[in-house]
Amino acid sequence: MRLFFSPEQLAHRPTQYGVHGRLIKPLENPERGETLIASLGQLGLVAELPAPIARETVTGVHADHYVGFLETAFERFQALPNAGPEVLPNVHPYYSGATQLGARPRPRTTGILGQAGWYIGDLSCAMTAGSFRAALASAASAAAAAQAVLDGETSAYALCRPPGHHAYPDRANGFCFLNNAAIAAQQLRQRYERVAIIDFDTHHGDGTQAIFYSRDDVFVGSTHTDPSAYYPHFFGYAEERGAGAGEGFNLNLPLAPGAGDAAFVAAVEKLAGAATRFGAEALVVSAGWDAHRDDPLSKLDVTTAAYPLVGRLLGGLNLPTVIVQEGGYSLAAVAEAALAFVAAFQEG
Amino acid sequence: MRLFFSPEQLAHRPTQYGVHGRLIKPLENPERGETLIASLGQLGLVAELPAPIARETVTGVHADHYVGFLETAFERFQALPNAGPEVLPNVHPYYSGATQLGARPRPRTTGILGQAGWYIGDLSCAMTAGSFRAALASAASAAAAAQAVLDGETSAYALCRPPGHHAYPDRANGFCFLNNAAIAAQQLRQRYERVAIIDFDTHHGDGTQAIFYSRDDVFVGSTHTDPSAYYPHFFGYAEERGAGAGEGFNLNLPLAPGAGDAAFVAAVEKLAGAATRFGAEALVVSAGWDAHRDDPLSKLDVTTAAYPLVGRLLGGLNLPTVIVQEGGYSLAAVAEAALAFVAAFQEG
Repeated sequence: MRLFFSPEQLAHRPTQYGVHGRLIKPLENPERGETLIASLGQLGLVAELPAPIARETVTGVHADHYVGFLETAFERFQALPNAGPEVLPNVHPYYSGATQLGARPRPRTTGILGQAGWYIGDLSCAMTAGSFRAALASAASAAAAAQAVLDGETSAYALCRPPGHHAYPDRANGFCFLNNAAIAAQQLRQRYERVAIIDFDTHHGDGTQAIFYSRDDVFVGSTHTDPSAYYPHFFGYAEERGAGAGEGFNLNLPLAPGAGDAAFVAAVEKLAGAATRFGAEALVVSAGWDAHRDDPLSKLDVTTAAYPLVGRLLGGLNLPTVIVQEGGYSLAAVAEAALAFVAAFQEG
Repeated sequence: MRLFFSPEQLAHRPTQYGVHGRLIKPLENPERGETLIASLGQLGLVAELPAPIARETVTGVHADHYVGFLETAFERFQALPNAGPEVLPNVHPYYSGATQLGARPRPRTTGILGQAGWYIGDLSCAMTAGSFRAALASAASAAAAAQAVLDGETSAYALCRPPGHHAYPDRANGFCFLNNAAIAAQQLRQRYERVAIIDFDTHHGDGTQAIFYSRDDVFVGSTHTDPSAYYPHFFGYAEERGAGAGEGFNLNLPLAPGAGDAAFVAAVEKLAGAATRFGAEALVVSAGWDAHRDDPLSKLDVTTAAYPLVGRLLGGLNLPTVIVQEGGYSLAAVAEAALAFVAAFQEG
């Protein structure tokens, strides 16, 4: 299994994260990447530098005007009177202009303050001078992993950071700017007619769902903590099954807090079964390690023992596979879970 | 002219306001009410206590589930781990569920964090223990002023604070929780078939617009700073003319920064003309004093000299009128402008 990572991904170094009415230090931090490299190194995986990503690869799943916003946001925001050190939105649109999930129109507001609220959905995506560069490099790791698979590799691991699965076609959310898993899936579509994404991060991948919600060529399946009182709050419910041509090609399996290993593994097994029935020819795994009971955000009480089971299940599908790093905020749990998963996946 | 104000309105005392990437001290503060009482006192107006407002009066223009949220938000938010001192949202829905302006469905998320982002649209509505009580008292002042007019008074001034015109059917925004002007207009509808709202606050009254956007019995006209790069950013554009039965019953006259007195007065004159053509039988004035050049948020370069002209214009309509206090953040400008306006209105 090849592994992709770029030190450019560390250029995103925000100091603030708003949650529960406070601005605190972000949970998502550059050390996560280094921890994973060390951990996967035990299996002989060595990180390779990805090739730079073409803008067209990014705009394959993101609105061009959104990418343009990300590119210039930091500089424009700094020009505001008494600007804070990082781009943080403070005002959000009421009516999105959308009639269904998917990309919205370009905002009418031309100012940076309104655009920040249009294009950034929460207080977890504080942008620093290097944030866009880091997000591009993270997406480049996903694209390089997909390219390796297109070039004949059985599987590849994209050590994406910042993560991606909360990024919408045109909105940053949940520590995510560019949807790395969606970029990888779209790239795999160059050869494969049907691509499945399976997401077992403990948060629903609302961005990934939105990007493919009306499509029947990419199946999106996710198991995650019930969003009723958990991020991303507004999506991830079982009744979201896709729309239009995409109806039936989206599957959410929310788990109740405290679900534990058996329920977690059973849910991934269901997703794998659905991907098989869909006729997936290639697979993208959105791998977050934050369902682990040691994770500061976890509510599912999953242990390290679950990850080899999940790895064997997904490896057993015998599909060309891109594993895309999503969340996971306990460095110890990330190291253990990823190692156990990848070892089992390779045997699977 | 009768004047309504309740000391309960001062129970909203947030310490934080998020803007330009920082949390700072709120501009909207309790002293604004006291300043206006002193100023209008020079014309012989004496503040009267409003009667308590009935919940049905509030839910005449707001979703019941939104009012329920406001009622319990502070207590529920305080129960979050490491909660900040005030309710501040940090995550907002992407797709509102709305297919047009107006009320959205009840959110599926049952947790306070998701609901805070659903029901509060920006970082200017930090809620303290007394915020809901204050918002209700402010709405009570508007309802009492409308009742005074229904009871035969020619005009009444509701010294509303917190202000109201950014409050949507189901969302707080821009220092506003309950839409005082909309509540007054809805109450005037008990007797009058056609009610006009004229809003000359320097910010577009996006909440008021949303509440009446599909209705032909309440005309909403507003002049304000061009929202392209100014709060509320997403609404207030000239092309927003109403929808469905309400098409043609909403009029926005955005002004370019630096417009000055002549353009400001001419815009109010156009709104007054439109209200007359509409056949208004009663009038609600959303009176913000923040177009004044001394206001910290002003971009329009309006001077005190404009306000007697505007007051005479609106007084000259000779309609039963409720004047509802909106914004205005320079205490000196508020005192001058309100005094000049009311004096001229009474002569008008």
